[in-house]
Amino acid sequence: MVLKMDLKTLAGQVSEQNRRALARALSLVENEQDGYIGVLDQLFPQTGQALRIGITGPPGAGKSTLTNQLIKFFRQSSQTVGIIAIDPTSPFTGGAILGDRVRMNENALDSGVFIRSMATRGSLGGLVRQAQEAADLMDAGGFHVIIFETVGVGQIEIDIMEAADTVVVLTVPDAGDMIQSMKAGLMEIGDLFVVNKADLDGADRMKADLEYALHLREAQKTWLPGVFLCESRKGSGTDQLGKQILAHAQYLQNSGEWLKKREARFRQRVRKLVETRLNHEFWNTARTELLDNRLNNSPDQISPYRVADQLLGDSRFSG
Amino acid sequence: MVLKMDLKTLAGQVSEQNRRALARALSLVENEQDGYIGVLDQLFPQTGQALRIGITGPPGAGKSTLTNQLIKFFRQSSQTVGIIAIDPTSPFTGGAILGDRVRMNENALDSGVFIRSMATRGSLGGLVRQAQEAADLMDAGGFHVIIFETVGVGQIEIDIMEAADTVVVLTVPDAGDMIQSMKAGLMEIGDLFVVNKADLDGADRMKADLEYALHLREAQKTWLPGVFLCESRKGSGTDQLGKQILAHAQYLQNSGEWLKKREARFRQRVRKLVETRLNHEFWNTARTELLDNRLNNSPDQISPYRVADQLLGDSRFSG
Repeated sequence: MVLKMDLKTLAGQVSEQNRRALARALSLVENEQDGYIGVLDQLFPQTGQALRIGITGPPGAGKSTLTNQLIKFFRQSSQTVGIIAIDPTSPFTGGAILGDRVRMNENALDSGVFIRSMATRGSLGGLVRQAQEAADLMDAGGFHVIIFETVGVGQIEIDIMEAADTVVVLTVPDAGDMIQSMKAGLMEIGDLFVVNKADLDGADRMKADLEYALHLREAQKTWLPGVFLCESRKGSGTDQLGKQILAHAQYLQNSGEWLKKREARFRQRVRKLVETRLNHEFWNTARTELLDNRLNNSPDQISPYRVADQLLGDSRFSG
Repeated sequence: MVLKMDLKTLAGQVSEQNRRALARALSLVENEQDGYIGVLDQLFPQTGQALRIGITGPPGAGKSTLTNQLIKFFRQSSQTVGIIAIDPTSPFTGGAILGDRVRMNENALDSGVFIRSMATRGSLGGLVRQAQEAADLMDAGGFHVIIFETVGVGQIEIDIMEAADTVVVLTVPDAGDMIQSMKAGLMEIGDLFVVNKADLDGADRMKADLEYALHLREAQKTWLPGVFLCESRKGSGTDQLGKQILAHAQYLQNSGEWLKKREARFRQRVRKLVETRLNHEFWNTARTELLDNRLNNSPDQISPYRVADQLLGDSRFSG
């Protein structure tokens, strides 16, 4: 539990780059405690400074190792780095990201690095919002670079990646069928692609396959994503990737894409907040009971369309 | 385009098991053409008879081949089978399910089998609703068994599987890291598990791994999912799987789980319909313009929370 305190003060401390206040604000937001929206609202004007990077790919592709190398890359030029490691694994099978503790120890003495893990509690949709809000707090807290790191290749990861300015998609030479399922979404949202563990057989082939697939989308975009061979364990290829991330950020600024992305995200967030509130206000006790009653009486005779209409006070089907 | 016709008549023809009318109604629903909700509403009381089976797993695991064997299994006892093959692959990378044409030809002379493919058009959420509605039409059209077949292991597949009574999760011995990402959801929703291509090395190991993972959830459920070794290309093991599917259906009936599932699904559908309508009605021209104006003027100074509140007519943050 977070102690009751003046939330205006907490927000002020976050923007003064107080790390302890940041950690407390992150917990406040993650637990959706009273007043958390006020803190986010107060800090919002100070966001929009950080470069937000998304890193995703199949389990075992080496995302944590690559992230560590990118931390080193950015720290060399004194950029501060916030990491949001998101595991949408359900609570049942356990959600800890392996190696996180190791990483936290490695960077424990560097106040320019801040790592936060998030796992699913309730809805997956909520996780996307929380990741975005955590990034806002780090952004307002003065971090130059924020990295979203997700495990897996599902819809949820794609949604989280859409909160990033620059998306790095990671794969490995032996990913096999994974490419098929990656095509379902990540191929389209990646700005940079990495074939990690490039010392393994098939790395060049994988690179060529990816380049071919990316070639197909060339006409649609002004930025043609590159494919990089890395051995992030040795640090080989990762500086080149870091430079390309910065080049992509520059491209976003120059082309006006950055502003467009920000606007689209803002719009999406407003729509989501409105949707949540409309639903919350609609499902009062009376309507919830009406639905319950409908289900208890002749559930097979009346369609969900008709019940929805009745709840909405419409009589399209009456009579 | 579907010719304008009396939709009451169309619904009547569907329930008289007219296959041509069914195909027409499916197109009507998939394209959300005028009056499609009326058709679904009229037919709803005739749904709830079919056993709805979900089959999912990674690309290349042999879902189509397994589905074909299950078709044979059910046809042996004169059960009619409707297949809804869903490919959530985006329109950009192409969404055709390979082998579908082959299967359609194989079963073209059997009026007891009906295959329908669906791909993403707009939102992925819409795909789940459409799959459910297509199943309702087949159900009202008298099919005894309906199989949802999806490619991949993402959130969308999990959502579609939740529309099924019995979920079969398919894997192969060399799936490797795929198991990791399967754990994120499919392990929990599977009622039966198949290690396909069981002649390959590692099949027994995979079976043992799955059984161990399933053992962990044993305490939570009264039905303990089994793991089956199959070689669906040869038809080995698939009849045993078919029998277990029927045993699971029996278990659902006897335990009252079937009714609970149906109710939960009904509730979910009503909630989704209400949500869609509330959103649709909320975002009138005035509100859409208000959001646009906010974005054009000082977008960085005002938070999405405040804009949402203003749109909702609240003044929590004013002053």
